[in-house]
Amino acid sequence: MEHGDILARLEATIAERRMGDPSASYVAKLNAKGIAKIAQKVGEEGTETVIAALAGDRKELVGEAADLIFHLMVLLSAKDVPLAEVLAELERREGTSGIVEKASRSN
Amino acid sequence: MEHGDILARLEATIAERRMGDPSASYVAKLNAKGIAKIAQKVGEEGTETVIAALAGDRKELVGEAADLIFHLMVLLSAKDVPLAEVLAELERREGTSGIVEKASRSN
Amino acid sequence: MEHGDILARLEATIAERRMGDPSASYVAKLNAKGIAKIAQKVGEEGTETVIAALAGDRKELVGEAADLIFHLMVLLSAKDVPLAEVLAELERREGTSGIVEKASRSN
Amino acid sequence: MEHGDILARLEATIAERRMGDPSASYVAKLNAKGIAKIAQKVGEEGTETVIAALAGDRKELVGEAADLIFHLMVLLSAKDVPLAEVLAELERREGTSGIVEKASRSN
Repeated sequence: MEHGDILARLEATIAERRMGDPSASYVAKLNAKGIAKIAQKVGEEGTETVIAALAGDRKELVGEAADLIFHLMVLLSAKDVPLAEVLAELERREGTSGIVEKASRSN
Repeated sequence: MEHGDILARLEATIAERRMGDPSASYVAKLNAKGIAKIAQKVGEEGTETVIAALAGDRKELVGEAADLIFHLMVLLSAKDVPLAEVLAELERREGTSGIVEKASRSN
Repeated sequence: MEHGDILARLEATIAERRMGDPSASYVAKLNAKGIAKIAQKVGEEGTETVIAALAGDRKELVGEAADLIFHLMVLLSAKDVPLAEVLAELERREGTSGIVEKASRSN
Repeated sequence: MEHGDILARLEATIAERRMGDPSASYVAKLNAKGIAKIAQKVGEEGTETVIAALAGDRKELVGEAADLIFHLMVLLSAKDVPLAEVLAELERREGTSGIVEKASRSN
């Protein structure tokens, strides 16, 4: 499956679960606890990704990076920000800001 | 452009720049400083995403989430972990772990 | 100098500088930027302490721990919370919560 | 009780418990899990302090700041760094580095 398909499906699943039963869904449970709790999870997964990169193995890094992306998507959903808007910002910067420098191309 | 296309192109650009001239490329500069510095940026952007979600406006959240994804991708690249591996882990969990619960479907 | 003297003097200095000229004082500059910026520094120094503990040497850990305590004290000052209140909470927990377990004593 | 007394007693208690029975002591349990887990707690409490400062009430900030100082002291203990060394660095900077600017004094 394509990158975009996985993320698009994940985004749809999160949106669908967001207002669900907190006892049956982790996404609904996080949303019921409020934005501060969701943000806290993003911060925690950021820290765990740092630790996995410095002190863990490849499997731990993959797992923590997945957790970080997942909780970031739950946060964006809770704030009604489509992932597409974030990716468009990434793309815009790639072209204009120098954060990711455009490769010089001969063609 | 599709989600997957943006991320795939960003991943290719990061890989291309990684070994480049640190004075000409931010990605090369980060890599020259080593994995601890790259991990630190992921941690910082995680904190800034938390703050933008709690105290910032929509534009700040979009910008910080983009920064977080970007630096996470630089970290994964520096550790030779393809984004596809992280997304495959996300997909695997969606189906099996209950972190993202599979929607019940009637069809 | 005693621990408490150093922290008490630091707290007094921060309080004195807080409303000062942002161009002449780092504490005043942070306060002029607002609580979100001060909180961000606490989060960043937390991350840098993590990294120093895992990938740095003793000198780096000492420096980052000092930065973390310093910025935490700037944050507490900006929120009008005396350090004594935080230390009283630490003391209370030591006695009652089991986070720090009271040593069994024979005398 | 004085600031320094509380911290000195806490430091002694942590040192005493560090090698204790992990099933009977939270400090021993953290140490048994290793430095990465202790560092992770420092990072998490840093994030929770940020969130309490931005979205919580005074009581939450006091509690999270206490947790942050506590886990920082567990980390320093696990790395054999006396708190006095960190406070001496804070004092040194107060006098020399401009991080905390020395008050001009007329006497």
